[in-house]
Amino acid sequence: MAGGQWSVVSIAGVGLMGGSFALALRRAGFQGKIIGVSSPATIEKARARGVIDDALPLDQAAAQSDLVYVAQPIERILSMLPEVDAHVRPGTLITDAGSTKLAIVQQANAHVRRGRFVGGHPLAGKESRGVEEADANLFRGRPYVLTSREPELEHWIERIGARLVILDPVEHDRLVALVSHVPQLISTALAEVIGSETRAVEVAGPAAADLTRLALSPYDIWRDIFSTNAGAIDAALGAFIARLEELRVQLRSVEMEWVFEHAASAARELRRSR
Amino acid sequence: MAGGQWSVVSIAGVGLMGGSFALALRRAGFQGKIIGVSSPATIEKARARGVIDDALPLDQAAAQSDLVYVAQPIERILSMLPEVDAHVRPGTLITDAGSTKLAIVQQANAHVRRGRFVGGHPLAGKESRGVEEADANLFRGRPYVLTSREPELEHWIERIGARLVILDPVEHDRLVALVSHVPQLISTALAEVIGSETRAVEVAGPAAADLTRLALSPYDIWRDIFSTNAGAIDAALGAFIARLEELRVQLRSVEMEWVFEHAASAARELRRSR
Repeated sequence: MAGGQWSVVSIAGVGLMGGSFALALRRAGFQGKIIGVSSPATIEKARARGVIDDALPLDQAAAQSDLVYVAQPIERILSMLPEVDAHVRPGTLITDAGSTKLAIVQQANAHVRRGRFVGGHPLAGKESRGVEEADANLFRGRPYVLTSREPELEHWIERIGARLVILDPVEHDRLVALVSHVPQLISTALAEVIGSETRAVEVAGPAAADLTRLALSPYDIWRDIFSTNAGAIDAALGAFIARLEELRVQLRSVEMEWVFEHAASAARELRRSR
Repeated sequence: MAGGQWSVVSIAGVGLMGGSFALALRRAGFQGKIIGVSSPATIEKARARGVIDDALPLDQAAAQSDLVYVAQPIERILSMLPEVDAHVRPGTLITDAGSTKLAIVQQANAHVRRGRFVGGHPLAGKESRGVEEADANLFRGRPYVLTSREPELEHWIERIGARLVILDPVEHDRLVALVSHVPQLISTALAEVIGSETRAVEVAGPAAADLTRLALSPYDIWRDIFSTNAGAIDAALGAFIARLEELRVQLRSVEMEWVFEHAASAARELRRSR
């Protein structure tokens, strides 16, 4: 299917992600109607910025949409999916923008009957949130994971400039545990340990700054990630700690030169692909 | 003692650090002679950039200096100290710019008899090295640790814009293990673990980039740091791993909110002091 089949898209949760998806769709040439489902205060700001064409309660929006895009915190996505499904026309596509995928896809498998669900995770963001920060270019050059193939959604993901990645939910959660959730915990733990040494700040330089930047993140987005991805995070943390314990033993050995070369090569590879 | 007592300063090792110290001294108003002790190729480049006034072998340079500034790799500092001491006039100040301090101060305690040794560690650097990169502003705003008080050296450290920190060598090595050496090992271990997952690069974002940047560092400067600070690094790694193991257990507990607040506050404190 080429693009252009959707005529109405609803965005449930018009914040940074949902608002940016709406703006990006429009900039990419989407000609249909975009309906916002959010609090009155958010709807007012979204209208003022031209992010949405209309605003409706979830049941009415779902009933007339070809796509329902759920851009809410993970626990809210979990609770909203049955409600969305109850109101959509048969065959309507439902997707989400949550940062973990297995719990959400399992919930959809159990509760999405009328609609068709494809899990999504745009790996994009900003330090500030809210529809005020919505940006048509937020997804440009960034990975956008889908948990299964869906031609029209893939078409628009490519049109908005994102890099499409198809990953099953288990694999997605395992990989983001390693590249995102474990780095957050490392940064949090290191900031705490450094913070417990009174004079450490006097000699801290760019290395400490690099590694504690993530520790500045607010907890609210992490609560749901930890509650829905604890198993994968535990496994990835275990692998990281085991490697660090090996380095601790190898510290003065000649193998460390090879370890550094190997790690530098992996770090360069991460940068090449971005 | 106010500034202005030194009339001849020798820089042993005119690379990024030694060359920058020479340029910074000059910019700060030092009127005396600066002698370089380095390989012929380095001396040629240092002269061309106006970093040094003269070049001599170590014995001749040491014999006429008021300060000998040893800016070499740590193992070279250790082997050079007895040689410097053998040639200085009694009471000559000797200092260094090595990244660990206990092994160097112990070596000085054992072998510096004619001169007086004060350990130094300017926490400054650049990605590129060599006298070509020397910069009079390299130390500006950065910590500069001395292992004991020394009025004229303190005077010039402040004149070149650095932030003077007095730390005994054991405390210095313990703190830099935590804020610099452990972050390097964390970054190296994480890059390796991420590198072992083929598809991780497809979903890696700014978090993974932040935490693997240090892994790009070449090993050569780390060999001597690990060989001279293994005990402190082991202890700091142990404290970090223990904290991470606690977070692993607490992952889904309500305490995590407090942990995040505490870590964010420590991370902000690190930034305030820079």
